[in-house]
Amino acid sequence: MARPTVPRSTRGSTHRPPLAHTQGMSTQALRWIDPPAGPAVVLLDQTRLPAEETYLTCTDVATLDDAIRRLAVRGAPLLGLAGAFGVALAAHRDEDVAAAAATLTRSRPTAVNLGWGAARALAACRRAQQHAATPVDAQRLAARAALAEARAIAADDAEASAAIAAHGLTLVPRAARILTHCNTGALVSAGEGTAFAIILAAHRAGRLAQLWVDETRPLLQGARLTAYEAGRAGLPYAVLPDAAAASLLAAGQVDLVLTGADRVAADGSVANKVGTYGLAVLARHHQVPFVVAAPLSSIDFAAGDGAAIVVEHRPAAEVTSFAGFPVAPAGSDAYNPAFDVTPAALVSVLVTERGLARPVNAGTLHLLGTPRAAGVAAPAIVSMER
Amino acid sequence: MARPTVPRSTRGSTHRPPLAHTQGMSTQALRWIDPPAGPAVVLLDQTRLPAEETYLTCTDVATLDDAIRRLAVRGAPLLGLAGAFGVALAAHRDEDVAAAAATLTRSRPTAVNLGWGAARALAACRRAQQHAATPVDAQRLAARAALAEARAIAADDAEASAAIAAHGLTLVPRAARILTHCNTGALVSAGEGTAFAIILAAHRAGRLAQLWVDETRPLLQGARLTAYEAGRAGLPYAVLPDAAAASLLAAGQVDLVLTGADRVAADGSVANKVGTYGLAVLARHHQVPFVVAAPLSSIDFAAGDGAAIVVEHRPAAEVTSFAGFPVAPAGSDAYNPAFDVTPAALVSVLVTERGLARPVNAGTLHLLGTPRAAGVAAPAIVSMER
Repeated sequence: MARPTVPRSTRGSTHRPPLAHTQGMSTQALRWIDPPAGPAVVLLDQTRLPAEETYLTCTDVATLDDAIRRLAVRGAPLLGLAGAFGVALAAHRDEDVAAAAATLTRSRPTAVNLGWGAARALAACRRAQQHAATPVDAQRLAARAALAEARAIAADDAEASAAIAAHGLTLVPRAARILTHCNTGALVSAGEGTAFAIILAAHRAGRLAQLWVDETRPLLQGARLTAYEAGRAGLPYAVLPDAAAASLLAAGQVDLVLTGADRVAADGSVANKVGTYGLAVLARHHQVPFVVAAPLSSIDFAAGDGAAIVVEHRPAAEVTSFAGFPVAPAGSDAYNPAFDVTPAALVSVLVTERGLARPVNAGTLHLLGTPRAAGVAAPAIVSMER
Repeated sequence: MARPTVPRSTRGSTHRPPLAHTQGMSTQALRWIDPPAGPAVVLLDQTRLPAEETYLTCTDVATLDDAIRRLAVRGAPLLGLAGAFGVALAAHRDEDVAAAAATLTRSRPTAVNLGWGAARALAACRRAQQHAATPVDAQRLAARAALAEARAIAADDAEASAAIAAHGLTLVPRAARILTHCNTGALVSAGEGTAFAIILAAHRAGRLAQLWVDETRPLLQGARLTAYEAGRAGLPYAVLPDAAAASLLAAGQVDLVLTGADRVAADGSVANKVGTYGLAVLARHHQVPFVVAAPLSSIDFAAGDGAAIVVEHRPAAEVTSFAGFPVAPAGSDAYNPAFDVTPAALVSVLVTERGLARPVNAGTLHLLGTPRAAGVAAPAIVSMER
């Protein structure tokens, strides 16, 4: 059995709930349970995949915060759910929901969805409390409202995922060979994910000839998680070292590079798993479309451009050791940013649940993101140049 | 202790000889010993570094061939020595030296030095045998000549390494931040290596501000070997995931990208460890010089261009498992080329022991490589544009 790539939590207990989907979420990655002992957020520990399907039961915000920090739960849309369900958990325990929201927002600095989800649940608490007659009533109403809001976010996310898949499919040519990076499927979503949802749609439409999966060092989310999801879905796939992608592109073996995003700035700059920017440069060099898929909740209109996005730097040990074994000499320093930022000019198309932005710039993002556009059924921008 | 990244040989015995240099070679990576029990080639098992300094004693060509295939011994110049000392070993054992040379040449298809070293030792055998009076005499003379030739190659390599360092140093600016890939130091050379020899020279000249070491997946020659050599030499260094190099370049943290080469085609195309080509594209995108250092023995004038270079594809398990632990689902396919090919147009300068080729093309390589140039003391092409 593989050792975990990051230290195990000592706080989360483990058990194996049934894989059946519950509460409208088509994922096993994050579930809300409410047994007599009290509610909890149950997470699939993604650090232990693919060797083990182990679940963490988080009965308090501190345990959930720890799980987020060590990437047991990860991925932009799912972190939105984690933020919201975390606030719901605090509300059920009659804890300070504002403090819980603040803690969860700080867990990972680059993931905009985390704070977004926590803020939505917190706002729902506040609204509910306004109608309470007594403090006990206020707590009960807040807890109920936060959970309802978290569930609504999950439902919205599943819906967004399906819409992203449908819009993105229009960009996939026949017999497509798609290169992806990191993990963007059901493990990060209440639906089928972002980029991976498009890949699944392409497979179902008979258009996927080959999925190339960047292993995605240092934590191998591609090899461990995307390959796991690809295998379960029966996709034709192969894993590759991140640095081998350039030779695949040079050999004409890639028709489309497709990734998710952790945060999109207002100008269309994309913060995503480290390595994404290099792929974007390589895709441009080889004249292959570079497409990013993300829900509107990942667009941070408060961040004017890429420079406004804080990039999280993670511990050297993620690079210098593997599964507890040293792979570099003791004391080696490491450069280990979790993310990089791809300028909008290198992104061919941004796929959202509301349609395609192309070219990707402040104008097209504004068009997608404004409330008025909410009623627009058709994609905002639909033509594909290639 | 770290587990080996590739299976251990069951044929090579292990012991720990003193680290003292012998026979004119300033390396512990490969040594010739001749105890009463019979001669052997002793290799530092590079698959076990940095956790263990374990030596393999190869008393026959089959064991050496196995060590080469599983990368216990590796790197272009050192493989030239392995080829030559391997033929010397066969000659001492009175085995078929032509068959030994053929076996060793096939061990790794991309490494031109391997066949080059084996062929040089074989030719020395043939010349020596012409003067023999008896078959016993012929065997004795061939063994002596092959060993002398192998030692001459080692001496030439040490000299070439020093000359490469001197020529390459002219390209290093003050307070240089150098990014390198794979491993190119004393572990691959009878001297201080190729690219790494330049880095050491820069450090001694007070010009090295920072060495960025690509970890170099899948076998982590950067993290395991280059970091090991950098640490021993007291260089300021940090290891990074290969895919993080793009963000370092974007941040303006790299003044020079410097790599070795496994084979250079006549037109200047460079076959080197997978990931090199992507770095070259990224360096060009960020207007950072991309410099390759290689001895003339790595130039294959018989290969007209990059398409003529056979790229070795290695087992999927190198990517899908780590130290015996699975990191991808069982049965995952992998794309695992050992090398990629960088077009000459992306190489700013090629540094050889005879000087600098710039621009890198068939004309400048021909000038460096022709026998007439052997007497030229000064670099063939010396100007540096930036």
